[in-house]
Amino acid sequence: MNKGRLEAFSDGVLAIILTIMVLEMKVPHGSDLAALRSLSPVFLSYILSFIYVGIYWNNHHHMLQTARKVNGAILWANLHLLFWLSLTPFVTGWMGENHFVALPVALYGAVLLMDAVAYSILSHTIIKLHGADSLLATAMGKDVKGKASLLIYFVAVPLAFVNRWLSLWPAMFSWR
Amino acid sequence: MNKGRLEAFSDGVLAIILTIMVLEMKVPHGSDLAALRSLSPVFLSYILSFIYVGIYWNNHHHMLQTARKVNGAILWANLHLLFWLSLTPFVTGWMGENHFVALPVALYGAVLLMDAVAYSILSHTIIKLHGADSLLATAMGKDVKGKASLLIYFVAVPLAFVNRWLSLWPAMFSWR
Amino acid sequence: MNKGRLEAFSDGVLAIILTIMVLEMKVPHGSDLAALRSLSPVFLSYILSFIYVGIYWNNHHHMLQTARKVNGAILWANLHLLFWLSLTPFVTGWMGENHFVALPVALYGAVLLMDAVAYSILSHTIIKLHGADSLLATAMGKDVKGKASLLIYFVAVPLAFVNRWLSLWPAMFSWR
Amino acid sequence: MNKGRLEAFSDGVLAIILTIMVLEMKVPHGSDLAALRSLSPVFLSYILSFIYVGIYWNNHHHMLQTARKVNGAILWANLHLLFWLSLTPFVTGWMGENHFVALPVALYGAVLLMDAVAYSILSHTIIKLHGADSLLATAMGKDVKGKASLLIYFVAVPLAFVNRWLSLWPAMFSWR
Repeated sequence: MNKGRLEAFSDGVLAIILTIMVLEMKVPHGSDLAALRSLSPVFLSYILSFIYVGIYWNNHHHMLQTARKVNGAILWANLHLLFWLSLTPFVTGWMGENHFVALPVALYGAVLLMDAVAYSILSHTIIKLHGADSLLATAMGKDVKGKASLLIYFVAVPLAFVNRWLSLWPAMFSWR
Repeated sequence: MNKGRLEAFSDGVLAIILTIMVLEMKVPHGSDLAALRSLSPVFLSYILSFIYVGIYWNNHHHMLQTARKVNGAILWANLHLLFWLSLTPFVTGWMGENHFVALPVALYGAVLLMDAVAYSILSHTIIKLHGADSLLATAMGKDVKGKASLLIYFVAVPLAFVNRWLSLWPAMFSWR
Repeated sequence: MNKGRLEAFSDGVLAIILTIMVLEMKVPHGSDLAALRSLSPVFLSYILSFIYVGIYWNNHHHMLQTARKVNGAILWANLHLLFWLSLTPFVTGWMGENHFVALPVALYGAVLLMDAVAYSILSHTIIKLHGADSLLATAMGKDVKGKASLLIYFVAVPLAFVNRWLSLWPAMFSWR
Repeated sequence: MNKGRLEAFSDGVLAIILTIMVLEMKVPHGSDLAALRSLSPVFLSYILSFIYVGIYWNNHHHMLQTARKVNGAILWANLHLLFWLSLTPFVTGWMGENHFVALPVALYGAVLLMDAVAYSILSHTIIKLHGADSLLATAMGKDVKGKASLLIYFVAVPLAFVNRWLSLWPAMFSWR
């Protein structure tokens, strides 16, 4: 199977996700500072998600470079990851328009969690095909960082109902 | 003619179809659970169509790998397939917003049927160029599965007026 | 300069133009046949434009295959062509929503004319770089067909105010 | 790291930015000349931004051709540039809908300034990796033109409150 076409297709989907998010920032009707200021939560959530999807593109790029071949399982694990990432524009818009109240923040966190789960599944599918002594398997090791991330994302979802800013912190955390 | 550019163009169109469907999931105005729950039929139809377009990308990928060359007829048969697939966001949105009532489900099924017809035309156009003893021709054989699919899709369209869930079942059926 | 990246960029823009046109087909609120029928002019203009942009992708593909190199002038002539083609979703939507009345049809024709002019400029820019005895120059010859097309498109614009269907006929004419 | 995938991803994002701007030109409800004329400021701002993003694609293309390799810093500097460019459809729409009044023009200018800053950061990041005697470093020299551009863009932002057309002039200035 063709690794290049998988990369190109993923790049296409990620580029579109990154760019259509800006369409959620509807052009305001007024032309004064107040009209602009009313957009600030939407803009804030746009910045957050732009960086977030950028990180995923970056990591996806590195992970697939270690792969020498792909099979049907990898293809589906990749589509599964793209599915959860494709929900980013929606949850970004919902969180921004509602000024970061609890439920939209929790849903944003839940999509972040599912992204991390899907990424983890994809990396295990690639390792399974290439063997336990492959480049990716060695690089990941026991993947303490990956497992800790999943745990933190998992905790962050209910945290949104306690403190919404604390709940968003894991998104920042992944900027390594 | 250049097979690579045909693949790249098709990948681009399929990536956009897959991703703009999420734009049909309009950000709700409320921020409570009721606002979210009102989106569930739209979300359900999004999942269904995401997997569905994913399957087509997957199959398209495999079929074109068997092709060694392309001609004008293949190029147009491919555009014909992309046309019917490009209607997916529209019928997905219409079906989701109307909570899976009969007519939108029937139209969704009709687009599914036309996708399958267009895919069948494309595969026959490729076989015609490469000869009856080509890789694709051998792989397809008498194509009993393909012909059965077409029949089932054909029956599914009027079925929407009897039982809408039964009518949607062939979409699931193609997840092989 | 890199011909491959010019092709890839053009493919991206053309794929997006082709696909976002479907967004002009807004999901109707009703779920009955009347709601669907009200969309038929929009759908008709979508089909017309889809084929039209498809023809341009096809021709663009063939023309650039004859080019061995690109320069700054070709790059700008190509962007100029993409600019006029990028107006297609707008004029398609306007013509469809207004049920093919005179002015939107004339504007549609005017964009068609400018597309043809821009395509002609691009082909002359490529010939200028490659020389009068190049592959493209020989293939085009005196380009009677191209010049006739330009004339017909030019006549078609005011024709929209006399007979709108006659005015749209040149779009069909280019399906060679 | 893979320069090709960085280019392809940037091309995808730039192609989408260029094309979705046309979606800000909402199809007017009327079908007469007045309806069309009401769109002229939006159309004007669309032309301006189309050329502007085209210039960036062009320059980005040339700059990356001088690069032999990429690293993590270049990847992030590139994403930073794409972020500011991705705001173009929003500021274009806001400026056009408000008929070029002062604040939207100033914001448009501010995004132009940040684009130029981000481009400058990207070029310095590439030079840092390739060394002071690399192709790009030699081509840029003391980069008087680049530094003058930054200064002019910086002055243009407050100028919007004095004379809006003078303020937009630097955008035209970069068409070299």
